[in-house]
Amino acid sequence: MKELKGAVIFGQSGGPSSVINSSAAGVFIEALKHRDVITKIYGAAHGIKGILDENFYDIDAEDMKELELLKNTPSSALGSVRYKLKPADVDETDYKRLLEVFKKYDIRYFFYNGGNDSMDTCNKVSKYMQKSGYECRVIGVPKTIDNDLWGTDHCPGYGSAAKYIATSIMELKLDSTVYNTGMVCVIEVMGRNAGWLTAAAELAKVKGLGPDLIYLPETIFDIEQFKASVKEICAKNNNKCMIVISEGIRNADGRYIGEFAASSTDLFGHAQLGGVGSMLANMINAELGVKVRAIEFSLLQRCAAHLASKVDVEEAFAAGAAAVKYALAGETDRMVILKREPGKEYKCVPATMDVALAANTEKKIPAEWILPDGKGLTQEFVDYALPLIQGDSKAPLEDGLPRFARLAKVKAGKK
Amino acid sequence: MKELKGAVIFGQSGGPSSVINSSAAGVFIEALKHRDVITKIYGAAHGIKGILDENFYDIDAEDMKELELLKNTPSSALGSVRYKLKPADVDETDYKRLLEVFKKYDIRYFFYNGGNDSMDTCNKVSKYMQKSGYECRVIGVPKTIDNDLWGTDHCPGYGSAAKYIATSIMELKLDSTVYNTGMVCVIEVMGRNAGWLTAAAELAKVKGLGPDLIYLPETIFDIEQFKASVKEICAKNNNKCMIVISEGIRNADGRYIGEFAASSTDLFGHAQLGGVGSMLANMINAELGVKVRAIEFSLLQRCAAHLASKVDVEEAFAAGAAAVKYALAGETDRMVILKREPGKEYKCVPATMDVALAANTEKKIPAEWILPDGKGLTQEFVDYALPLIQGDSKAPLEDGLPRFARLAKVKAGKK
Repeated sequence: MKELKGAVIFGQSGGPSSVINSSAAGVFIEALKHRDVITKIYGAAHGIKGILDENFYDIDAEDMKELELLKNTPSSALGSVRYKLKPADVDETDYKRLLEVFKKYDIRYFFYNGGNDSMDTCNKVSKYMQKSGYECRVIGVPKTIDNDLWGTDHCPGYGSAAKYIATSIMELKLDSTVYNTGMVCVIEVMGRNAGWLTAAAELAKVKGLGPDLIYLPETIFDIEQFKASVKEICAKNNNKCMIVISEGIRNADGRYIGEFAASSTDLFGHAQLGGVGSMLANMINAELGVKVRAIEFSLLQRCAAHLASKVDVEEAFAAGAAAVKYALAGETDRMVILKREPGKEYKCVPATMDVALAANTEKKIPAEWILPDGKGLTQEFVDYALPLIQGDSKAPLEDGLPRFARLAKVKAGKK
Repeated sequence: MKELKGAVIFGQSGGPSSVINSSAAGVFIEALKHRDVITKIYGAAHGIKGILDENFYDIDAEDMKELELLKNTPSSALGSVRYKLKPADVDETDYKRLLEVFKKYDIRYFFYNGGNDSMDTCNKVSKYMQKSGYECRVIGVPKTIDNDLWGTDHCPGYGSAAKYIATSIMELKLDSTVYNTGMVCVIEVMGRNAGWLTAAAELAKVKGLGPDLIYLPETIFDIEQFKASVKEICAKNNNKCMIVISEGIRNADGRYIGEFAASSTDLFGHAQLGGVGSMLANMINAELGVKVRAIEFSLLQRCAAHLASKVDVEEAFAAGAAAVKYALAGETDRMVILKREPGKEYKCVPATMDVALAANTEKKIPAEWILPDGKGLTQEFVDYALPLIQGDSKAPLEDGLPRFARLAKVKAGKK
């Protein structure tokens, strides 16, 4: 394989996670080991937008200690973006600009960290550079708490979010059943189309502190069945029931249940929208007369780095480092994946796949892992997910609070 | 001091916390050391209600390992209750029943763990037993995440909730500012009358990741001032602003701002109530046209034992153990308090005060610690609160999830 000298650029894209910065650390720390080939290391501010705007950070100016701290710092330290490139045959403007920037800075390695849309960007950039005859190795690094990226056993970011959800549900189960009176608790979890995050609630059952009902976006949500199940559980359990739902549950017509929530006006005249969780809680309260509480994990589930899974933090780092190693070995047009080794003991190793296959495909929970009527997931799901939440890894404490990375973020001088 | 032989009963009351069970462990483990005097140890199911109903657990039947695990198990393991005793001169029924039960089981030590209302119960029971000539030593053990108990430097439960709030706000600050676009984030915190929990957001500023605005129930919430402040911050900060509010903020007329939230009907015809946080977020969205997100910490802030403060866990345990020691030494009619020693290094030691003084008094944040116009708290508050969130203490991991205590909960045979 021909050695390719040049600069590296790395960008973060899409919704952040507890461990996306661990992949950044993996890319940077690995790249720093190859200074014979890698002439410069750039971080793009706000992903592909930062490249288009020539808005880069000089990663060579960063302190190694801070780069190490990135492993346990949530959110996207370089800033993220949601920007979809138009197909090159529709509008070439962005591609021409990218090529210009890549040439100007002698960028020969492009690593992009994100989910489906980001892999689409990776794929388009890669194909355009190839067509233009500009040699640049492009590798996608997977990231999404939703775990819906196709082709990889699982996705960095999922394990930590799943651990947060399972742990919080155990704690909420203890808390919400503390009185000798009824309480129906409805917990709303992220994941509009794939139910992996919501399914993580099943893991709390392993410790005997799981919810009574779990509703995923993969199955039709039947409101009458739902009410009947809650009623039945309340009747035999002193009006106590814990329900976990995905924000993306839909009825038989494919309409999001959340669309049926109230849209109303407060006393100041402003529109107010309720979430699907609070809507269902209110419905239970109205029809069963029992006390209810709706809880939304909201952004907490994707940024609670204080509860990150050690397996996840380490795999995210390894995925970033692997991207650099694969690129140096000559691979391009690929996405790093995690491949689970056969055998009883859990082991995942990095590998790669065609980035075009990863782009824009959603991986949902296999239908055979889902029990009917909100009864949860099968043992197959537990066997799949439980290894991903093992161990703790968090930022060191300073003043009793996490000491997150503080990057210098020195702007790379515009050329 | 005359030795008083007899049984111990311990109950938990009011809203649970991450460390109320640590106080239970303190009571039980200390009591088990004095079997020459303490003939039996009972845990009341659901507090005072369990005593009235003769619904006890036999703590002697518990495994020491599980009692130790109680230190890091959130919620009230024995079950909690909200039950207010009527004054004995209004209705003596409950008191007569309590005396009967105490006599039947030879209960000579009554420890009750809770907040203001629970101390009121302690006080009433204590006074009645004295009047009846039945010798029983009564000691209250303080507990409340709200930190509003008068007479103690702070309250077990507060440090852990404060640590959860400050840590989560740091993480949310990183997450909610990740895009190069506007985002106003409104975070709603518990504490209807005292702002201690909301004020904990100030601690995140120590690490440079605090909110822009903090609104406490101790000061009048002026909606026009609020809007002006948000506008000003948005103008100079790329439409990014993080606001932390107490659920109990009130206007100049003393009305809760939450009362102005929409009460509406969803498409199924059920009433739907919005929280004050989402109401303010919607208002900002309508008036400033910027993207908003409302986040409610809800029950999570009081049960997130995975993020408990080591100082808090240990003080809660010490408070429980101290209650037993004080009672054995002859004290009664008292509540355990934490006394902060003077000096630069933080040190709190248990002491006691008249339980009547603790009952039904609310401790609010001193006015001189509060900066005007949502600007936060003074250094005095930080110096007060920061020592309370130091260190980590959490349940051991099993299957990657917390191994909480599993009490045998053997019912004590009715006599």
